[in-house]
Amino acid sequence: MTTVGILGGGQLARMMALAGAPLGLRFSVMDTSADACAGQFAPLVVGDYRDGVALAEFASGIDIATFDFENVPAESAQWLCERVPMFPNPRALGTTQDRLAEKTLFGELGIPVPGYVPVDTREDLDAAVAKLGAPCILKTRRLGYDGKGQFRIRAAGDAGAAWDALGAQAGAGGLILEAFVPFERELSVVAVRARDGEFRTWPLTENWHVDGVLSASLAPARVAPELEARAVDYARALAEALDYVGVFALELFCHDGRLLANELAPRVHNSGHWSIEGAETSQFGNHLRAVLGLPLGATRALGRACMLNWIGEMPSPGPVLAEPGGHWHDYGKTSRPGRKVGHATLRADSDEDLADALERVGAALGREAQVAPVLARLCDPLPPPAGKESP
Amino acid sequence: MTTVGILGGGQLARMMALAGAPLGLRFSVMDTSADACAGQFAPLVVGDYRDGVALAEFASGIDIATFDFENVPAESAQWLCERVPMFPNPRALGTTQDRLAEKTLFGELGIPVPGYVPVDTREDLDAAVAKLGAPCILKTRRLGYDGKGQFRIRAAGDAGAAWDALGAQAGAGGLILEAFVPFERELSVVAVRARDGEFRTWPLTENWHVDGVLSASLAPARVAPELEARAVDYARALAEALDYVGVFALELFCHDGRLLANELAPRVHNSGHWSIEGAETSQFGNHLRAVLGLPLGATRALGRACMLNWIGEMPSPGPVLAEPGGHWHDYGKTSRPGRKVGHATLRADSDEDLADALERVGAALGREAQVAPVLARLCDPLPPPAGKESP
Repeated sequence: MTTVGILGGGQLARMMALAGAPLGLRFSVMDTSADACAGQFAPLVVGDYRDGVALAEFASGIDIATFDFENVPAESAQWLCERVPMFPNPRALGTTQDRLAEKTLFGELGIPVPGYVPVDTREDLDAAVAKLGAPCILKTRRLGYDGKGQFRIRAAGDAGAAWDALGAQAGAGGLILEAFVPFERELSVVAVRARDGEFRTWPLTENWHVDGVLSASLAPARVAPELEARAVDYARALAEALDYVGVFALELFCHDGRLLANELAPRVHNSGHWSIEGAETSQFGNHLRAVLGLPLGATRALGRACMLNWIGEMPSPGPVLAEPGGHWHDYGKTSRPGRKVGHATLRADSDEDLADALERVGAALGREAQVAPVLARLCDPLPPPAGKESP
Repeated sequence: MTTVGILGGGQLARMMALAGAPLGLRFSVMDTSADACAGQFAPLVVGDYRDGVALAEFASGIDIATFDFENVPAESAQWLCERVPMFPNPRALGTTQDRLAEKTLFGELGIPVPGYVPVDTREDLDAAVAKLGAPCILKTRRLGYDGKGQFRIRAAGDAGAAWDALGAQAGAGGLILEAFVPFERELSVVAVRARDGEFRTWPLTENWHVDGVLSASLAPARVAPELEARAVDYARALAEALDYVGVFALELFCHDGRLLANELAPRVHNSGHWSIEGAETSQFGNHLRAVLGLPLGATRALGRACMLNWIGEMPSPGPVLAEPGGHWHDYGKTSRPGRKVGHATLRADSDEDLADALERVGAALGREAQVAPVLARLCDPLPPPAGKESP
C-alpha cells in the first residue's frame, strides 16, 4: 500500500485524494490549518511548512511526496526530497516561485512574454513605468496567487500608491513590473509529464477571471489548431527544461494572434477542474499516475465542458444537479469572502446543449454575469482555419 | 454539513463516500471489522450491528442513514430508522432479506420467477425436488449472497447431500428450493428512485458469473428495446410497491425471450460499477442524491463499458491504465481467496474499440477466459428489432 504525501491540504489535495483512492493509494496531507478541507478524507498533519518536527512526522508516514500548493519554502522542499521521492522536483518549484526566474526561463525557451522589468527601488519603479508605459502591473516576485500581491498602475501617477502597497516587499522577495497586455483571451494548457518523459496535454482551456480570480473555464477552447499546437509546444519545452513530473498549467494571454506566457503553476490547476467529468482521465488522476510512474491516461475531452467557480459561498445545488450533464463540487469549506468554496461543471455533447444548460443555470442561480462571457464565446463563429493566425 | 451514515464499510461504502465528497457530504461508516476498506476514507465505527452501544455511537454522529449491506438485522434497522431518516426503508430491506417474501412480491406484481417451493423439512425437500425436477438449487431464505448459502442439486439423489449442507438452517431462517433455469443471459437493471417518486434506470447490463460471483459486466447490454422496456417496468413496479428510495439492482435471467426475476439487491450493486466512468452519473452519486432528496442525475451511458471484477488478488494495473479508456479500482483490501478486491472498467465509443481493448487487457493479464464471453457478445449480430421477442 503506497501512501502519497501532499503538502497543502486545500481543495486540490482533496480532489487528488478522491481521484487516487481508486488506484489503491492512501494519503497523508500536511497543512497549516487544522480544518484544511482535504482532512475530511485523508489524515492531516497540522504544522507550518518550516516546522521541522511536523515535517518529520509528515515525512515518516509517506512513501512519496507531491504538492497542492506551490509556495512551500524551498528549504522544506529540499529537506523532504532528500528523504522521499518528490515530484515535481525542487528546481521546478523554485523556478516557478519566482516570477523573474520563470520569465527568464520563458525567454531562454523562446516563449514570448509581456514586457517586464525587475524593480528593487522606488527609482527602479519610476524608470520601469516610463519604459513599459501605463497601464502596467506591479507584482511581488514571490508568493502571489489569485491576484494577491499585485497592484495595477493605471497611469504613471499611480506609481507612488503602488510603492506604498508593495514597496515593503522589495527587499524580501523583490518586485517586478509587468506591461499590461490588452489580451482578447486568456487560455491555459494543462499538461502532464510522466517520469519516463511521456508528455500529454488536455485540450486548451479558455478562462475568464473576475478580480484576478478564475470565474469560468470552457474546454475545449475554440481556437485555431495552429494556436493550440503552439501552446502545446511551449508547455512541452517548459516541462522538458524543468524535467517536470506531474501536472502543471501554463497560463497564456492571446493578443492579435500572439500567445504570451503569463505564468506556470507547478500543480493541478483550477482551469483543469473540468477534466474530472469532461475528459477520459482527470488532471488529478493523471498527476498521481505521473508521480507514481504509472502509465498516463487519455486526456481527450468527452464532449464540451464549462466549469463555474463558486467564490465566497456555495449557491444552491439544485439547478446544477437538475441538468443532465450537471456535476457539483462542494469543497466542504466554510464560507468566507473571496474564498474558493466549490465549483460546478456542465458537460454536454454540443455547443448548443452546453449553452442551453449554462443559460438555465445562470438564470436559476442569478449568475447571468458569470455565464455571459462563456455564452458569448459559444455563439462566436468558429475559429479561423489553421495557418491564418500570425505567429 | 450533512453526515451520511453507512451501515457496512466495504467497497460499496467506500465508493459511495468517494462519490459523495463532491456533494459536500461527510460520512460515517459502521462495520464489524476494524479494517473495513471504507474506513480508509471515512471515520469508522467498529461493532456488531446488534451491539446497541456501537449502534448508538454510530447514530449519534449522523444525519441520515443508508446501507452498503442488505443483511443488517431487521431490529437494528428499525431502531435506527426511529432515530434518523433512513433510506431504503426497513420494509424494503426486510422483504429483500427473505427470498420467499421477495418471490411472493414478484408474484403479486406479475413479475415471472423461476419455479420455487419453500422447504422446512427433509420431506419437504424430497417433495420439492420431485415437483421442480433436477437440476435445481437449494438456498437459505436469508443471508445468502455471491453464491453463499446455496447447494446445487444435479440429480434427485443429491437431495441428501443438500440437506446435510443446509438443513441445519431450515429451522432458523428457512430454506427454499428453486428450479434451475437454463438461461441464455443474465441481465440486471440498476435503478434509482427519488424521495418524490422520480424513477430512472441505467441502461440494462449483461452479467457473467463464475462460481456464483460476478466476473464481468457489459453495458449497455445488447438487447431488444422491448426486452429492456419490460425489465424497466418490473423494476419500476418493485420500486413503487416497496416505496423504495435509493439505488437497487434487479437481477434477471433471460430464457427464450422471457425475463425471470432472480433477486433484488436493495443497494448499489456490483453490476452497476461501470456507471462510475460509463454513465453521466454513477450509481453511487445517484444513490446519495436520492437519499438526500436532491435531483437525480442523468443515467445515460457515455459510450460502451465493460467491468471486470478482480477476485482474490489484484492483477498488475499497467495494462488497464495503458488503455485509452482504462480505469482502475483497487479497494485497498488485502488479498484473500474469493474476496472482491477491485475491478477495472474499460470504456470506449464503439463495440469494436471496446473489443480491441478487452482483447489486449485479457492477453496482457492472462485473463483470456474472463474476457472471452464479453468478446463473444460484442461479436454477436445486433439484437433482433423490438417486438420480435415473445413476452
